[in-house]
Amino acid sequence: MTKRLWDITELYFDPKRQHHYETLFTIGSGYLGTRGAFEESYPGDTPATLIHGIYNHIPGALVPELVNAPNWLPINVTVDGTPFQVILNVDKADFMTPPNGLALGYSRSLHMDTGLLQREVLFRAASGNIVRLTFSRFASLHDQHVMAQRLTVTAVDGSPAITISAGIDTHVTNAGARHWSADRQIKASGSRCAVQVTTEPSGYTVGMAAALISDYPTHGITEGLRASMTISFTLQQEESRIIDKLTAIYTSRDVINPLETAEAKLEEAAVIGYQMLFDAHCHEWEKYWTTADIRIDGDEEIQRAVRFTTYHILIPTPRYDERASVGAKTLSGLGYKGHVFWDTELFLVPPLILSQPHLARNLLMYRYHNLHGARNKAKANGYQGAMFPWESTDTGEETTPQWSDPQPDGTRIRIWTGDSEQHISTDITYAILKYWRWTNDREFLLKHGAEIVLDTAAFWGSRVEYNAEQNRYEVSQQIGPDEYHENIDNSVFVNRMAQWHLQTALDLLEWLRANAPADADRLTTALDLTPKRLTHWRDVIAKMYIPFDREQGIHIQFPGFFEMEYIPVPKYHPRTRSVQEIIGHARTIQSQVIKQADVVMMMALLGEDLSVPAGLDVRQVMINNWNTYFPRTDHGSSLSPAMHAWVAARLHLNDEAYEMLHHAAHIDLQDNKGNVRDGIHAAACGGVWQAIIFGFCGLHIDANGELALDPHLPAHWREVNFNVYYRGEQRTFSVKNSV
Amino acid sequence: MTKRLWDITELYFDPKRQHHYETLFTIGSGYLGTRGAFEESYPGDTPATLIHGIYNHIPGALVPELVNAPNWLPINVTVDGTPFQVILNVDKADFMTPPNGLALGYSRSLHMDTGLLQREVLFRAASGNIVRLTFSRFASLHDQHVMAQRLTVTAVDGSPAITISAGIDTHVTNAGARHWSADRQIKASGSRCAVQVTTEPSGYTVGMAAALISDYPTHGITEGLRASMTISFTLQQEESRIIDKLTAIYTSRDVINPLETAEAKLEEAAVIGYQMLFDAHCHEWEKYWTTADIRIDGDEEIQRAVRFTTYHILIPTPRYDERASVGAKTLSGLGYKGHVFWDTELFLVPPLILSQPHLARNLLMYRYHNLHGARNKAKANGYQGAMFPWESTDTGEETTPQWSDPQPDGTRIRIWTGDSEQHISTDITYAILKYWRWTNDREFLLKHGAEIVLDTAAFWGSRVEYNAEQNRYEVSQQIGPDEYHENIDNSVFVNRMAQWHLQTALDLLEWLRANAPADADRLTTALDLTPKRLTHWRDVIAKMYIPFDREQGIHIQFPGFFEMEYIPVPKYHPRTRSVQEIIGHARTIQSQVIKQADVVMMMALLGEDLSVPAGLDVRQVMINNWNTYFPRTDHGSSLSPAMHAWVAARLHLNDEAYEMLHHAAHIDLQDNKGNVRDGIHAAACGGVWQAIIFGFCGLHIDANGELALDPHLPAHWREVNFNVYYRGEQRTFSVKNSV
Repeated sequence: MTKRLWDITELYFDPKRQHHYETLFTIGSGYLGTRGAFEESYPGDTPATLIHGIYNHIPGALVPELVNAPNWLPINVTVDGTPFQVILNVDKADFMTPPNGLALGYSRSLHMDTGLLQREVLFRAASGNIVRLTFSRFASLHDQHVMAQRLTVTAVDGSPAITISAGIDTHVTNAGARHWSADRQIKASGSRCAVQVTTEPSGYTVGMAAALISDYPTHGITEGLRASMTISFTLQQEESRIIDKLTAIYTSRDVINPLETAEAKLEEAAVIGYQMLFDAHCHEWEKYWTTADIRIDGDEEIQRAVRFTTYHILIPTPRYDERASVGAKTLSGLGYKGHVFWDTELFLVPPLILSQPHLARNLLMYRYHNLHGARNKAKANGYQGAMFPWESTDTGEETTPQWSDPQPDGTRIRIWTGDSEQHISTDITYAILKYWRWTNDREFLLKHGAEIVLDTAAFWGSRVEYNAEQNRYEVSQQIGPDEYHENIDNSVFVNRMAQWHLQTALDLLEWLRANAPADADRLTTALDLTPKRLTHWRDVIAKMYIPFDREQGIHIQFPGFFEMEYIPVPKYHPRTRSVQEIIGHARTIQSQVIKQADVVMMMALLGEDLSVPAGLDVRQVMINNWNTYFPRTDHGSSLSPAMHAWVAARLHLNDEAYEMLHHAAHIDLQDNKGNVRDGIHAAACGGVWQAIIFGFCGLHIDANGELALDPHLPAHWREVNFNVYYRGEQRTFSVKNSV
Repeated sequence: MTKRLWDITELYFDPKRQHHYETLFTIGSGYLGTRGAFEESYPGDTPATLIHGIYNHIPGALVPELVNAPNWLPINVTVDGTPFQVILNVDKADFMTPPNGLALGYSRSLHMDTGLLQREVLFRAASGNIVRLTFSRFASLHDQHVMAQRLTVTAVDGSPAITISAGIDTHVTNAGARHWSADRQIKASGSRCAVQVTTEPSGYTVGMAAALISDYPTHGITEGLRASMTISFTLQQEESRIIDKLTAIYTSRDVINPLETAEAKLEEAAVIGYQMLFDAHCHEWEKYWTTADIRIDGDEEIQRAVRFTTYHILIPTPRYDERASVGAKTLSGLGYKGHVFWDTELFLVPPLILSQPHLARNLLMYRYHNLHGARNKAKANGYQGAMFPWESTDTGEETTPQWSDPQPDGTRIRIWTGDSEQHISTDITYAILKYWRWTNDREFLLKHGAEIVLDTAAFWGSRVEYNAEQNRYEVSQQIGPDEYHENIDNSVFVNRMAQWHLQTALDLLEWLRANAPADADRLTTALDLTPKRLTHWRDVIAKMYIPFDREQGIHIQFPGFFEMEYIPVPKYHPRTRSVQEIIGHARTIQSQVIKQADVVMMMALLGEDLSVPAGLDVRQVMINNWNTYFPRTDHGSSLSPAMHAWVAARLHLNDEAYEMLHHAAHIDLQDNKGNVRDGIHAAACGGVWQAIIFGFCGLHIDANGELALDPHLPAHWREVNFNVYYRGEQRTFSVKNSV
């Protein structure tokens, strides 16, 4: 594999795509993420640094949001007095000495192998002198409190006078919302500057300290809300200078004195220096890729795209923090306000279980530490056990907004997901079980995982409704993955997954009794798992209503689904919008158009454990289900295509599987949905990894507890190679195409 | 190899890139080329159909140009009265019923395997009804007088009333210049329409006839300068209708009655029908690709790009016409006005010699038929023999403009290439010799080729200047491939190639005397090849001044070159402009910055026949030359990178070779130079093919007259497979990477 498939390169800067590339070129360390905005800024840019756990809820806002931290990127350069900017065009008459300068060349690459973002610009100042500016930046994976930047300035033509002003800017908002209190420390002296800011009202403090490292006298100044350090020098023609900027960061989540700690860390980093920081950083990246990289031979487009999606799984995931999790847009944009959804457990966690199990554990621990929020939610809604919030932040409380932002006509739309998308608790349980089966991490299961599994089972035990007339259990008012259909009764996805959840809980308890009786006793007592309650669970499992059409041999998404208007989705080919947009919201919800197929998601999760009525062949039902639901699904959710790719691959539907995989892998790169400016589609990234490993390669744990493959690669793929962890050991797989 | 590497797809329509894609998506048949403008037009579009040989020189213009023919593309559709257009955005308030309609989806692909351009648009009319429109078009490779279009309209939502108006538009100009006389025939009746137009003053007539083929009553009408045929119908929901439009075309270069012949051909095509026309067309394309396709395993980006460049070699090359040749911008744009340069013989002809030798022959015959123009030019300049024009059109006369278009300050710049770029005659001879060596086409050589070789040698015999003081022959006032340096004396490229040319002529004459004495006698008499003249040639060969620096072991581009300002080109990395643009024209011409290295071109053409002074190792001189000239070359010419790739591959400079190949292969696809709107860079296309086959694969005729390989593939390439013709037989090569 050559280096060229490790880079994403922007050959020309197009201001219209500025926000798209800011998102794509986000760097991160598992501690924070920083969008790929320019050091010198550009009109309309949206720089953002998002730090795990730093949420704030300002008065008047519906919900809390992850706070945009002070901007540590600024490096402003002037060349003979002309401020450097990526100016692309000038009047012909001004061509040789454009008054605001001119970029004569531009290239920017994200090196995914090392998480390094690099930009080279050839810039001619108004004076006519030409410089080359090379900017590099990385957020250290070796020391997550350190970020490093390097600027190399080369005098290409002439002897330009250069000034460089670099610093930290606390004048930042979340698209206008101000989270930082007016009480700030902003200081600068010599080659150092530092800031400390505090969210209001949540009271998180962030301290940042930066150093400008050069051979020149450096002047620290503060101006308004910005601290900076300035140097000036003149270059001889062809002379080159390297200027490094290092930034250290701590928050009150890490230490009691973030500013002082950041300052101390900065001095430590300054002694180590850019190059050694980078070497240590690369070493960590190498370890990441050893097990995260899927090497695909025979499809360079997918190869590069899969590295991109994997990169965006790795950079937001906390390495040393069990109390933060990854939001639906990672740390790469303000979309969904940094809230954590099921995207984490069902899309991001599985790739991490196999490739970086310690990171998967961190994410699962976030849920453990927030069990109180889930218990509060259950209690507030009149249920028992733990009912996790649909959207979660630092508090573990439900933080789904109840209302949308105002529509063009001024009205707001009621958002029901926080009320009704209750499958989140089962999604978390599913991830815990997957983690347990793949890692054999007994300590986690006994101390943390089992409690979540059992207490969320207790929620379902209290949540289900007994229909005496039918002698069956039902669940009303739910939203499944297909969010076009809200507050429906007896979602097959919800009912079947709740049934699976209860059975899993019973099995687990039995296993605990046999293998860890003390923990079984402790949990039985603490969670009040009385024999009566367990008997009830067994009754629910036996009598859960699973909507099924025997005649067609298919699962029914929910009773009444097929009575609605049938609109075959493929007829809208080629479309760049969802069918919901095309036909309108009102008609969509009264139709069989599906955002993401519940039944397909269920097949992805359960495979042949779907449970079908006696006498039916499960594979045939799966095919029937696919044939029924695929043509009804518009993939209005970015979560959808990868799951469909996975299931199609399992069903040997090679064309559909590849089409869906290609779609999923390019959601961010091609900005298919036009909203990448708001952040990476994390679930799509995680879904792609799963589609390839679990779907195309068919990696699974077999009946004997051994890893096994069942590959169905696209016809033009030659080979897929990857390493995964299984029960603490690294295992290597090479899947050759048998087609 | 999968189909996906045969397509170039535009996923989103970006009006800013409209002209770029019009050029990329040109279709052609070797008879005409038609840019990829939309059937229904789009604001600012630049549709053009260019037919070989139809030049016109209007009063006031500096030179003749290839004339933009009547537009045969128009198909205008209205849906419930809303004119179909690719409208991408509407106000939010209008979203459901936009007054001008809205494109809900768009996709356009050029299928390079079959030369089919296809576009699908999902369109919602103001009425709310939605249709899918699928447009296909091809210029028949089986019958070059026929073009076919197919429109499939599908009622996706609602029962829309459709009107389709299709026709031929004679209201066309060359960017404002009017070439068609006011005297036109424009007629329409029922499902047929036709036009006949005549260039003024050149007097070429073009006749075009079109049929609209559907099940509906069709009304022919003429409106102004356009003839069209209209149908109306209403579709039921989900109903689909196929409407075909066929167009036939003849010119007065083909027949005496173009309009009538076109009408007759149209009826013939209408009987055959779209599908059978397409099948026959595909069959011809299959034959083309058998020998034109280079199959690269291990580099999908280059694979697709090379198919693209090869496609654009194939579509403009005349199949049945010896009196037209391919211009520098092919038939894909108005750039260089359709004039024929050395690009044809040194860049396009070699790939055709190996892959479609009959097409190479057509292009060489164009020069034979225009020998009179070359003789006129020689005579007018006081020389003997044949001196081919730098820019050639239908007349064979010199048609290089002497002056540029007006500059911003109103002045014009003198263009010297028509006066001084005299190597064109040798370039043609080089192509003839290559054709002869690879095809063994004795008939061509004896009847046509030899006469060109010998008479252009006669030109050089009269052109060289004897310097008595130095006892050597010199050539003054030349321009080599490096056009930054004009009117220089003793260009090493010109002098060495003229020397090679004279030697080649002598060798050929000797061979003719031995193998075809009657032809030798005929040519000796006709061209006045007296013993005295031949003795003079020998003297010139022996005493030609080849500027060489013995100390450095390098060829000197021209004496004085190294006394000019030295500007290392790599220092301007990364640049998206030529160094000439960056530092200005005045400074460039006084510097060592090279547009395209003469010495590298010479190494491409002559390889180890470079001729170096006794005692020097030719390989070492080649390396020295490369090291000298490569860092001075800014590739301001699109011809440059491929030639550098070729030579670098021969010198085993793998990184430079690949970098140059990648650059060359993407000049059009990525629009590196920002001028693809004016047409395809034909020479770059032909250069890419040569760089791979002659450079990377090292295919050559060895000392025994056998084909041999000397491969140096980029490290990440696995294998290259191709078929070529050698002396009438098809030969298959598989080059595996030995790295």
